[in-house]
Amino acid sequence: MRAGGRRGCGVARVAGMGVSRFDVVKLEDLPDDLRERVEVIAAKSGFVPNVFLALAHRPAELRAFMDYHDALMYPAKEGPTLSAAERELIVVATSGANHCTYCVVAHGAILRVRSKDPELADKVATNPWGAALEPRQRAIVDLALQVAGDSATVSDEDLEAAREAGLTEDEIWDVGAITALFAMSNRIAHLTALAPNPEFYLMGRQPRS
Amino acid sequence: MRAGGRRGCGVARVAGMGVSRFDVVKLEDLPDDLRERVEVIAAKSGFVPNVFLALAHRPAELRAFMDYHDALMYPAKEGPTLSAAERELIVVATSGANHCTYCVVAHGAILRVRSKDPELADKVATNPWGAALEPRQRAIVDLALQVAGDSATVSDEDLEAAREAGLTEDEIWDVGAITALFAMSNRIAHLTALAPNPEFYLMGRQPRS
Amino acid sequence: MRAGGRRGCGVARVAGMGVSRFDVVKLEDLPDDLRERVEVIAAKSGFVPNVFLALAHRPAELRAFMDYHDALMYPAKEGPTLSAAERELIVVATSGANHCTYCVVAHGAILRVRSKDPELADKVATNPWGAALEPRQRAIVDLALQVAGDSATVSDEDLEAAREAGLTEDEIWDVGAITALFAMSNRIAHLTALAPNPEFYLMGRQPRS
Amino acid sequence: MRAGGRRGCGVARVAGMGVSRFDVVKLEDLPDDLRERVEVIAAKSGFVPNVFLALAHRPAELRAFMDYHDALMYPAKEGPTLSAAERELIVVATSGANHCTYCVVAHGAILRVRSKDPELADKVATNPWGAALEPRQRAIVDLALQVAGDSATVSDEDLEAAREAGLTEDEIWDVGAITALFAMSNRIAHLTALAPNPEFYLMGRQPRS
Amino acid sequence: MRAGGRRGCGVARVAGMGVSRFDVVKLEDLPDDLRERVEVIAAKSGFVPNVFLALAHRPAELRAFMDYHDALMYPAKEGPTLSAAERELIVVATSGANHCTYCVVAHGAILRVRSKDPELADKVATNPWGAALEPRQRAIVDLALQVAGDSATVSDEDLEAAREAGLTEDEIWDVGAITALFAMSNRIAHLTALAPNPEFYLMGRQPRS
Amino acid sequence: MRAGGRRGCGVARVAGMGVSRFDVVKLEDLPDDLRERVEVIAAKSGFVPNVFLALAHRPAELRAFMDYHDALMYPAKEGPTLSAAERELIVVATSGANHCTYCVVAHGAILRVRSKDPELADKVATNPWGAALEPRQRAIVDLALQVAGDSATVSDEDLEAAREAGLTEDEIWDVGAITALFAMSNRIAHLTALAPNPEFYLMGRQPRS
Repeated sequence: MRAGGRRGCGVARVAGMGVSRFDVVKLEDLPDDLRERVEVIAAKSGFVPNVFLALAHRPAELRAFMDYHDALMYPAKEGPTLSAAERELIVVATSGANHCTYCVVAHGAILRVRSKDPELADKVATNPWGAALEPRQRAIVDLALQVAGDSATVSDEDLEAAREAGLTEDEIWDVGAITALFAMSNRIAHLTALAPNPEFYLMGRQPRS
Repeated sequence: MRAGGRRGCGVARVAGMGVSRFDVVKLEDLPDDLRERVEVIAAKSGFVPNVFLALAHRPAELRAFMDYHDALMYPAKEGPTLSAAERELIVVATSGANHCTYCVVAHGAILRVRSKDPELADKVATNPWGAALEPRQRAIVDLALQVAGDSATVSDEDLEAAREAGLTEDEIWDVGAITALFAMSNRIAHLTALAPNPEFYLMGRQPRS
Repeated sequence: MRAGGRRGCGVARVAGMGVSRFDVVKLEDLPDDLRERVEVIAAKSGFVPNVFLALAHRPAELRAFMDYHDALMYPAKEGPTLSAAERELIVVATSGANHCTYCVVAHGAILRVRSKDPELADKVATNPWGAALEPRQRAIVDLALQVAGDSATVSDEDLEAAREAGLTEDEIWDVGAITALFAMSNRIAHLTALAPNPEFYLMGRQPRS
Repeated sequence: MRAGGRRGCGVARVAGMGVSRFDVVKLEDLPDDLRERVEVIAAKSGFVPNVFLALAHRPAELRAFMDYHDALMYPAKEGPTLSAAERELIVVATSGANHCTYCVVAHGAILRVRSKDPELADKVATNPWGAALEPRQRAIVDLALQVAGDSATVSDEDLEAAREAGLTEDEIWDVGAITALFAMSNRIAHLTALAPNPEFYLMGRQPRS
Repeated sequence: MRAGGRRGCGVARVAGMGVSRFDVVKLEDLPDDLRERVEVIAAKSGFVPNVFLALAHRPAELRAFMDYHDALMYPAKEGPTLSAAERELIVVATSGANHCTYCVVAHGAILRVRSKDPELADKVATNPWGAALEPRQRAIVDLALQVAGDSATVSDEDLEAAREAGLTEDEIWDVGAITALFAMSNRIAHLTALAPNPEFYLMGRQPRS
Repeated sequence: MRAGGRRGCGVARVAGMGVSRFDVVKLEDLPDDLRERVEVIAAKSGFVPNVFLALAHRPAELRAFMDYHDALMYPAKEGPTLSAAERELIVVATSGANHCTYCVVAHGAILRVRSKDPELADKVATNPWGAALEPRQRAIVDLALQVAGDSATVSDEDLEAAREAGLTEDEIWDVGAITALFAMSNRIAHLTALAPNPEFYLMGRQPRS
């Protein structure tokens, strides 16, 4: 299923590695509310992202995960707030720092789509500390990297630096909370050896014609 | 409020540090479903744990957090599974490794109550790598520490080692998922400089008479 | 003796773990000068701290350890100097950073007594980098953490920062030397798997009535 | 020049970042021997890889770099040896561990072409420790990661493990020497903030029709 | 005094750097018992090692330091025990890992003299993890490095490995305690920027004629 | 051969460790151009440095290595540039940080000769972060250490700091490129367990008479 026909002769992939190290549930076996939410996503993407199938053997956890994710990534807000691309930027930068393949590949795709920049995701995932960014984005990524990698040292001065770069209290919370959510989700992806869907790798890389 | 009258003369605490760096919502201002859930907890504990007040300015996030937490910490299960004390052991060990004061103090209290051991929490929080534990507990804590601190390297061999110590697939998932949840919640506590309620410090330290 | 009767059902402790991995000497078998010094301490504390029993099979080392400890922790000084609570603050902060259970538990108790603050020790031991402290205490802890964890980089600028926070040359020496002494003693505690006396866990947590 | 017309609205890139922080030499200004070598590469790739333009202000260094690179990456050998894909696998894995965007993007493209696997490069660059690989490839990557990140500890036992996975002395040398060469070249790319050519990002991702 | 007349033109040393960042006491101003002990050492070495002058403004600390040092480095023992060269090997290996110039240079000199090997000290100080050593010495250095750098993880299995390499309980204690003593003394040397006496650099490098 | 007659009784060296873990080629078996280049060096030094014998089984790699090395360490330049001693200072500082015994011992010898300072190499190799240096040298070493150990974070601000210390663009390139070259060569030395020639240890330590 994982593109077996295209296997190269130089470096072989491990046969039989699937979506997850744990039991995977089919879409049709999900509780109705979850199945319907995932079907909406699948209709937009053209496929069912593997993360839902891997979490589905624990419906209560999957439901809480989707609720948390949507509250932070698709907030219903008025007034100034982080853009959708900035939210994905946080995910890709911290997932890169955490070496999480699923999240880098899947959210890298979304970041390409949201930012309309075909290069940004690879740059930020590979070297989040050094990628060239505008000052506002650099402030977002710097705070996110600290929360991801060394949160015990987050100080009043660190938050003040974010404010000086123009972030509101609400945006600072979002940076920290999105980073925290993916600290969780990167770890679950590593526990399960979660495989990115093949479709994510190419998404957003080509100009639409 | 933070025990101001007991301030020592040798080392002064910072005046005015409150529950969180961000806005704190009062219990009565929570949406009804959340207020009722927190009131149940407060009735059992005798006080409202600060984490709920600090997350409450984002009700959707608080709701998802409580759902996720309850699914993992108070699961409705049959058959063999992690005990309540083992679940708290994971929280205290990884929160200690992550240097999260709120979670160490609050869940340290719960671990003392659940395990009926007044020393275990301090030992595991201070040195989760070296604390003397039974083999099953050591296997739980070892896997949790790897997921907490270096999840990118979690391998089939690591899960196999957990199985050899007697953990089921379901229990392994729980170890990883609880660790992941508190990877998130430790980071939110650090972002907010979340203060533990004074009551937690003493809870479970004394034999009940 | 280690609260065997209170063993919890959820998480079992390892049977047979004693005071130290190495031979432990009884108080009455110590050379007279050492026995008398330890008896004075035991009279004050109400028990013999395990560290003395664990070091006692090497009387010359125990004597040098006690001499060094007393010179730094109970100095006979005039003029401005670190308070007793500040000295314990250094011990607890660096022992927390070094994950030393014996020193965190034993000196955490002494810090609670000296500072009359029942929370400070747990906060500083768990997260010495982020605990909220007054500027003078923060400067003390910052220098101590650098000497504990990365002393090769201590520079003239670092000492100058301590001076600007109001520390005298004499106080800076004390911060460094106390940290260095407990760099030694944390390592001996880890070598021996030194068990804290049960009495330390509760000491200083309750208001005296 | 860097795809300015495709700039996204959500996350802006820093205007004016060029190929390198240092002077960049045009192809026609290179010494003849170097110009001719680069023209051969450009003819194959369809563009001049930026690394050559960035190193060219120091022709003697560029010449030595190309000589070293070709000796290790395109060796004229008989008998069993590392495949071309395996050589690129080493580069991508260690450049990922070193967070080098230029080398991950450029050699990721070559690895996709050589291995005919459109996913391998992203997996190995993001998480070289955990990517699922055949045992021979895992042994190659494990040794490479040790040489890249912690070479002082390389022991006889480490080389013996590589031999047990089937690597010859010659192949072990290649693993170590290629890793060492890119330890150098990753650092030069970081010094210069070397920008990958836009063409590399998409190369090898699509099935040839 | 620090070889001012031989100053090179290529790399200048900082003018005015002395023995210590703190007050240095002259030999004649030491309390009698300390002065006499240091005079014995100076008579053997041909000079007064700077460490004594730097610690001397705190006589009680210097006395405890010398007592501790002599108990561990010059023990009065019968039966099998660590050789004098092995004791210095521990000091040089861990001081190298701790990047302590004074202890590497001064104890490197003593190790050359004790081991009659002019190369061993430089090898072990530069790369204590990889230096080629006999199995007994490797076991000693491995345990010492763990106690120096990561003592919280020292386990029963680690001590068992030392026993299997032939170390007695007494020798294991010595390895740990010497390492711990120099964890302290390396930190004091870094706090004071303690300068090695020029004589140490050449000592033991040349065959005696 | 490695000073066997002087073997000490306290700490034994491993018998049979030679120049390299891999095949070593004799000088007379080198291709003519390489043999002649090495003979020039041997004539100056009085011996053939082991690095050439260890790399010689791969003549193309040895040739590229020598070309790269000479371009950076013996550049034909006019105008202000790094002195020969400053170039060796970079090598010794970063090889010390990388724990590379061959490069510390061999280039430490050259640094002693070039700087006419018998102490500088040992100080910088043992503690490159803390060694007392003039501001220009400190700026050189600071940049070199960042490129050696954490190059992904090298920023415009870091290069600006080097400029403010007086370094030209050309000198900054040299600092980075020399560090990068020895990042490679330290790793090859570790792969091969390359033994320093005995002559290096004493070179430049004694005043010429």
